[in-house]
Amino acid sequence: MVTMEAFTQFVFLISAAAFVGFACITFVFIWVFNFKEGLAWDGGLAEFNWHPVLIVIGLIFLQGIAIIVYRLPWTWKYSKLVMKFTHAGLHSLAFILTVVALVAVFDFHNAAKIPNMYSLHSWVGLAAVILYSLQLVLGIGIYLIPITPVALRATFMPLHIYSGLFIFASVLATALMGITEKLIFGLKDVPYKNSPPEATFVNILGILILVFGALVLWIATRASWKRPSDQKILDSLHANGGGEANTKVGPALSEDAELVDPETCGEVRRRSNKSDDFDQDK
Amino acid sequence: MVTMEAFTQFVFLISAAAFVGFACITFVFIWVFNFKEGLAWDGGLAEFNWHPVLIVIGLIFLQGIAIIVYRLPWTWKYSKLVMKFTHAGLHSLAFILTVVALVAVFDFHNAAKIPNMYSLHSWVGLAAVILYSLQLVLGIGIYLIPITPVALRATFMPLHIYSGLFIFASVLATALMGITEKLIFGLKDVPYKNSPPEATFVNILGILILVFGALVLWIATRASWKRPSDQKILDSLHANGGGEANTKVGPALSEDAELVDPETCGEVRRRSNKSDDFDQDK
Repeated sequence: MVTMEAFTQFVFLISAAAFVGFACITFVFIWVFNFKEGLAWDGGLAEFNWHPVLIVIGLIFLQGIAIIVYRLPWTWKYSKLVMKFTHAGLHSLAFILTVVALVAVFDFHNAAKIPNMYSLHSWVGLAAVILYSLQLVLGIGIYLIPITPVALRATFMPLHIYSGLFIFASVLATALMGITEKLIFGLKDVPYKNSPPEATFVNILGILILVFGALVLWIATRASWKRPSDQKILDSLHANGGGEANTKVGPALSEDAELVDPETCGEVRRRSNKSDDFDQDK
Repeated sequence: MVTMEAFTQFVFLISAAAFVGFACITFVFIWVFNFKEGLAWDGGLAEFNWHPVLIVIGLIFLQGIAIIVYRLPWTWKYSKLVMKFTHAGLHSLAFILTVVALVAVFDFHNAAKIPNMYSLHSWVGLAAVILYSLQLVLGIGIYLIPITPVALRATFMPLHIYSGLFIFASVLATALMGITEKLIFGLKDVPYKNSPPEATFVNILGILILVFGALVLWIATRASWKRPSDQKILDSLHANGGGEANTKVGPALSEDAELVDPETCGEVRRRSNKSDDFDQDK
């Protein structure tokens, strides 16, 4: 059965993403506690270490989960509004952790008299965080404030989706630059180029971050794994006597995608000249 | 008029991509000739410099253009086969330049007794190049060899598109890591953290590379800018008396996207359970 096949494939990929995501978090903790100075808030290297830890947990893992949270078939029994709050809430949490992560690194730099904002890592990273905050404010303003016109929501959706994915990808690139910097500056006894165990270990963390990103981006860009519109779910529940069992596989994994919810942009197919820029699937 | 609006928007973005792409190439040449040792094939730093130059020209600029070449409305008067050869040809050229770029850096490392393949930059970079070669071989095998079944072409298309975009994004991330490494190792008199002019200049190159990538990925993921199927173009030419003027705006920018060419996957909309994994837009 196609439906079950699609569902099995989805479960496999989401499990892989969760597994690799948790592996990233585990690796960054092992890096900090086993190879580095641990965690503290003392203006020293142990304070700096909050930077990679909070970025991996917040801006990488939580942001990744926030991006694909609508796709989880188990959540389709909840209303769209509940899921929007979940989506915005996860992104907000990621943003808060990121702010603390930035404070940690500025604090450390200032105490150690290292200049701030000189590296490409810092330029791209700060740009990504500024764009992330803008995305958050615009996202809440457009999709959570009830008075925003539906037409604006629909028009802005392709940009919202694209910016979200591009910011996420930029964060991954920034993390890889950060790892590169830290391994060059941080390895004193045996330098990076002589591949001490820490270098190999943290290179693997970099690869895991990239694999996590690849899985999130794949899941986020499969049109057939989209959350169906609320009406569609309601109809489906009715047809099945209102049971919850049906939502476990869920309609969007298998059924006709001709939906009309402007916020699941891409499911509305272009039929005429009128909606020219509106059928963007991610 | 929506059609002209969409076309104007496309022309603006493609011009921006071309402009930023050429700026990247200009910047890398200025870096190498104005700040560095120029270009030579002598096992020294001037040989290393071929590495960033050829990567920016080949793996970044040419790969980016190859990705969006089907989207250029000016090319829609040519057959799909001609465009496939153009797409594959540009990618092949990018790949050849990349191989030379890799030889340059291995040569330099060996002459200077610097270990190879120790950095995250080298790990991600080599992985991306291996995946790129695989993508090239599979792409030619599946889409240019006439005997490959249509069903296979269609099934493989979402993966071909996703891999292409993901490899491109990974290349951009690798370039940013490479810039980071080179600015840390290469700036001797005034170190990176004290922001000498070269550091600022090359940071800007990094930002330009990212902007070029953002434009290419935006253009590549707009469903409404897809090349229409050959049949569609033919019909359109007939309806317009076969003139070429029509192809300047082109049908896919404005008209009904219900097409049947399996290789423009994503334009075939899912109607039933049968083609579950087949309606992926990039």
